[in-house]
Amino acid sequence: MSLRIAMVGAGAVGGWYAGLLALAGNEVACLARGDAETLRRDGLLLRDGRSERRVRLAAVETDPGRLGRFDLVAVALKATANHRLAELVEPLAKPGATLLTLQNGMGNAEALAGLRGPEPVVAGLCFVCINRTAPGVIENSLPGHIRLAAAEGPTQARVRACASLLRHAGVEAREDDSLESVLWRKLCWNIPFNGLAIAAGGVTTDRILGDAALRERARRLMLEVQSAAAARGAPFGDDHIRRQLEVTAGMGAYRPSSLIDYLAGREVEVDPIWTLPLERGVAAGAAMPELARLLGEIRARLARRG
Amino acid sequence: MSLRIAMVGAGAVGGWYAGLLALAGNEVACLARGDAETLRRDGLLLRDGRSERRVRLAAVETDPGRLGRFDLVAVALKATANHRLAELVEPLAKPGATLLTLQNGMGNAEALAGLRGPEPVVAGLCFVCINRTAPGVIENSLPGHIRLAAAEGPTQARVRACASLLRHAGVEAREDDSLESVLWRKLCWNIPFNGLAIAAGGVTTDRILGDAALRERARRLMLEVQSAAAARGAPFGDDHIRRQLEVTAGMGAYRPSSLIDYLAGREVEVDPIWTLPLERGVAAGAAMPELARLLGEIRARLARRG
Repeated sequence: MSLRIAMVGAGAVGGWYAGLLALAGNEVACLARGDAETLRRDGLLLRDGRSERRVRLAAVETDPGRLGRFDLVAVALKATANHRLAELVEPLAKPGATLLTLQNGMGNAEALAGLRGPEPVVAGLCFVCINRTAPGVIENSLPGHIRLAAAEGPTQARVRACASLLRHAGVEAREDDSLESVLWRKLCWNIPFNGLAIAAGGVTTDRILGDAALRERARRLMLEVQSAAAARGAPFGDDHIRRQLEVTAGMGAYRPSSLIDYLAGREVEVDPIWTLPLERGVAAGAAMPELARLLGEIRARLARRG
Repeated sequence: MSLRIAMVGAGAVGGWYAGLLALAGNEVACLARGDAETLRRDGLLLRDGRSERRVRLAAVETDPGRLGRFDLVAVALKATANHRLAELVEPLAKPGATLLTLQNGMGNAEALAGLRGPEPVVAGLCFVCINRTAPGVIENSLPGHIRLAAAEGPTQARVRACASLLRHAGVEAREDDSLESVLWRKLCWNIPFNGLAIAAGGVTTDRILGDAALRERARRLMLEVQSAAAARGAPFGDDHIRRQLEVTAGMGAYRPSSLIDYLAGREVEVDPIWTLPLERGVAAGAAMPELARLLGEIRARLARRG
């Protein structure tokens, strides 16, 4: 089955999955900003360890009104742009379309579900290492997987459809019963590694693992996330923490997305990655002093950056 | 001693103190936005239980570049506009000027101190009930007092100077050794009353005190603020909580500033009043589940408002 798909945002995650879905024979249009001209002219270049693939998109626009309407609207915007969701997403959705957020952290599914219209919302959390190294050039250094879960209402059938679509495009897509659970398991990586990368002044993940004090802070942050997840009824085991540390060791000098934003002077996704998890964890009764301290340090770094 | 004073922001707090300082013989200029035209034409009208006073300002502008430079720059902007501080405040400060924040909540003094230049920063927390009822018309229903504290560096002499200036204008100004302590004592009111007013769907303070469940939540929130203040080394006693409840009972159907912003569809000062206190309290080891829950409810209300 080939679908008409709109990808909102053509950064690392948006570009990568738009490209794979187009390579699999879907009609994929892209809503982009700065990279629109390059994408229109050259398409996307997807690189991983094994291959380099160039793929043309069905359409690339900066104005959603010029793209038409789609069966699936996937959102790969930075969460800091979520105040523009209504304006960007509503014009793209056919009646009955599926909305799929591929964004980082908490609050994104709620923001999509808050749009007018009864479209079902699916959340996909991307456990991957993808960087956009130049306009239209996306590099994937860890194939990883996407965990999909229903965000709003009885959308398990939509989750299955998204998973099947992604698998057909060569993506390892796992279906999950609980978005809450997937979010905390993903945050178990993002909270310590995106956070300490900034708090330590701009360091890659290998430096965090290689420094005894930073590594210990990462471990304690992961334990706090684990306790918050349990308090919210979505527990995960120590094996998940162990696996995150192993996977990270294999990443080398990886720059988490927030570090790239921080170093480039761009807005950092503070609320979805640190503030909302702190609020929700503490509200559920978890003690999260390490996370609160980390958040204070991140804010101070961002304020000093000006 | 008469000073050249700039007031940045002509809302309730800015208008009230700009008016009193001008009545006391200081040369007071005002940086305003929507109300500038009215203020220029009619000046300010200050009303309290006893009197109605009209006062002209030395200058009213929307562009700080047109105002000149001042000995004291007082900031009464909503904290949600703090990203504009550099642009608004720097052009107004003489070398060696004092910067005085009269804003609500945490993070404002740090934001002012983060501006270029070595100007000392004083913080004034306003324990008052002031509303702007029309452009240029400011009503004060509780004389209250200002607590002043040094925010950055050895500025105790500046604190004394600000206190003396305000007293000379008829304001009860108290000097305090610790900004941390003043902030938590003020938040002991703002966190529960500004917050529950929104979380309960838009209710005045009398409704919070008159509803057993809301009153109990207010009390528990105050106890959490008390424990956070103590964990941060700035303890206050039960008498402070008792006094806040008494004062509030005397306010009648008061609309906290955040409730007014909420009902008017304007941005609410979420970070300074709830998010930063949560982060700092939890980082210091306090348990603040009630505050975290309240914050979640406020975010949900604001999201639904659209």
